[in-house]
Amino acid sequence: MANYSFIKPYLITRSIHPENQETPISFVRPDHIENRLFYRRNHFSYPTLSSSNYWVPVNGAVQNPLLFSLEDLKQMPSKTINVVLECSGNKRSLFEPKTFGEQWEKGAISQGAWTGVPLHTLLDYCGMSEDAKEVVVEGYDQGKRTDTDEVHPFARSLPVSKALHPDTIIAYQYNGQALPFKHGFPFRLIVPEWYAMASVKWIKQIRVLESRFRGPFQAKDYMYYPDKETDEGAFPVTTQNVNSTIQKPVDRDVLDTGTHAIQGIAWTGEGQITTVEISFDSGNTWDVARLEKPASSYEWVPWSYEWNVSEKGTYTIMTKATDSKGSAQPETPFWNQKGYGYNAIDQVKVKVQ
Amino acid sequence: MANYSFIKPYLITRSIHPENQETPISFVRPDHIENRLFYRRNHFSYPTLSSSNYWVPVNGAVQNPLLFSLEDLKQMPSKTINVVLECSGNKRSLFEPKTFGEQWEKGAISQGAWTGVPLHTLLDYCGMSEDAKEVVVEGYDQGKRTDTDEVHPFARSLPVSKALHPDTIIAYQYNGQALPFKHGFPFRLIVPEWYAMASVKWIKQIRVLESRFRGPFQAKDYMYYPDKETDEGAFPVTTQNVNSTIQKPVDRDVLDTGTHAIQGIAWTGEGQITTVEISFDSGNTWDVARLEKPASSYEWVPWSYEWNVSEKGTYTIMTKATDSKGSAQPETPFWNQKGYGYNAIDQVKVKVQ
Repeated sequence: MANYSFIKPYLITRSIHPENQETPISFVRPDHIENRLFYRRNHFSYPTLSSSNYWVPVNGAVQNPLLFSLEDLKQMPSKTINVVLECSGNKRSLFEPKTFGEQWEKGAISQGAWTGVPLHTLLDYCGMSEDAKEVVVEGYDQGKRTDTDEVHPFARSLPVSKALHPDTIIAYQYNGQALPFKHGFPFRLIVPEWYAMASVKWIKQIRVLESRFRGPFQAKDYMYYPDKETDEGAFPVTTQNVNSTIQKPVDRDVLDTGTHAIQGIAWTGEGQITTVEISFDSGNTWDVARLEKPASSYEWVPWSYEWNVSEKGTYTIMTKATDSKGSAQPETPFWNQKGYGYNAIDQVKVKVQ
Repeated sequence: MANYSFIKPYLITRSIHPENQETPISFVRPDHIENRLFYRRNHFSYPTLSSSNYWVPVNGAVQNPLLFSLEDLKQMPSKTINVVLECSGNKRSLFEPKTFGEQWEKGAISQGAWTGVPLHTLLDYCGMSEDAKEVVVEGYDQGKRTDTDEVHPFARSLPVSKALHPDTIIAYQYNGQALPFKHGFPFRLIVPEWYAMASVKWIKQIRVLESRFRGPFQAKDYMYYPDKETDEGAFPVTTQNVNSTIQKPVDRDVLDTGTHAIQGIAWTGEGQITTVEISFDSGNTWDVARLEKPASSYEWVPWSYEWNVSEKGTYTIMTKATDSKGSAQPETPFWNQKGYGYNAIDQVKVKVQ
């Protein structure tokens, strides 16, 4: 057989200024995506590192505002969790009518092992106010938005309950190595179950609020606007929707008759994936795909299906994931102005000849 | 300003087995594309190099069949020409209804400087038959096609007139360096003006025929089948169609009001680009873009347009290239079963806010 080791997939460039590049999701197999192929999503240019980056102040509605260093964090009890990060704009290019913004296909998603300290550990040291409502995490990345002339940092808030969740961590390692610079070195937030806008990189400060945070990345962006023209019915983007992606075959592939392995991944926000179903007849009948390992929280589950096809023709392959909360991928995506949260039944078309 | 030098675009992976990767056309500016970003299009796995690769036999309908070595070629008078290579499936993903095969977007195209010896020099040495009709160039790449169980090499023929054209060369250098392995080392054919299936890589042999060559990459693939169901009206893919691509902005970009540079490239097969026009009102009115350098044969011409936009809203930017033969990009693409030769007016949509 031919040696393919010198053929490599690469990130798919969506923009350079700032850097937005997508994981070539059809061509990654491991559960821990290497840094080189982890998707990159930025609102601004990369921040310039200085010594202050190695310190994180926790302030606002706390009894004792404190400053923690990277070394402080490394001394505290840590945990390592496998978490899928998915941009809320993943699959945006599939919406009809199309929406503006980076035209992510199916690869604004990656996962791996994050090591860090629970955010609640830091908040406990500082003594959070009993009236605290939200915890704002601000990154060093900042710049002008197209809609205003002001400079804004990238900052996001979490409700106190999510901030205190034991698996909401300040991560300083990825896959056992120091966090890569492009993914938030020296530390970033990791918020399992939520879309990745919550997982703020290059943490500059952590502020406890007794009110609601209204920064533009909280109150303008990362909101679902279901109405085509107005803001009516808007609500915030939070947890990941149940979803699946067919990695192989790729759309419009030409196959021969015989047996083909159909492969993919499935994931969800709250709960775990329970089944992945596959259909070859536009969803009239569904067969169950094999989950390659036990589904667990925060991770995608790889699945596969052995397809015997003897009849030539064109086929549409569809997959539908269901999770332990009873949520399943819908037939029709939930359209919204900014194109977030696409999770309709996945499909590829192939020709067998 | 931020330093972006550590942010790089990459090839866009369409398949790994065999390797098909696309140039990130929105993010390349130079006229001579570096090897790293030159699109890769393969039908089969890469051939294994052996000493025989450094020799090319010319046989068939010739008086003196001869064997030429790489060293022989390097001794002969050479020429260096800038040639755009475009896969005939470039922009295939834009056809509606969609066609099967690699879903190339707008980057199955690259160009640079090719150095080599005219094919006619070798044919002259061998004394081509007066009854010669075609010259078949066969590559070392071979394998099974999905439609048969036989092993076929990738082989293509040229009519004698094109084979004897002084700019149809056997190239052994790209951009002043030895030909990269993935682009046909040690030598490949370069056929200016034709879609790139004609520019056979890893040349194994050159055969002169007094009849028509009917290999599957000549008579089945690389044929336009305009009818949806039958082979009626089929005709071969040859010269590149007049075409243009908007590189910047990218589709669905969000811009602020003010002045923006719209940039792109335009190219054609026979003749040269004479004008590139741009429209912001669905083609009702057209303004002329600036050609960044004099248009010349075989090369794309970079163009630009300074766009002043003060009114917020959504815009469709369209471009239409015209060449010296009087051909212009059509409004509607010429649909064909295998999705070749897409050259409809290019367009991107942007939102100004």
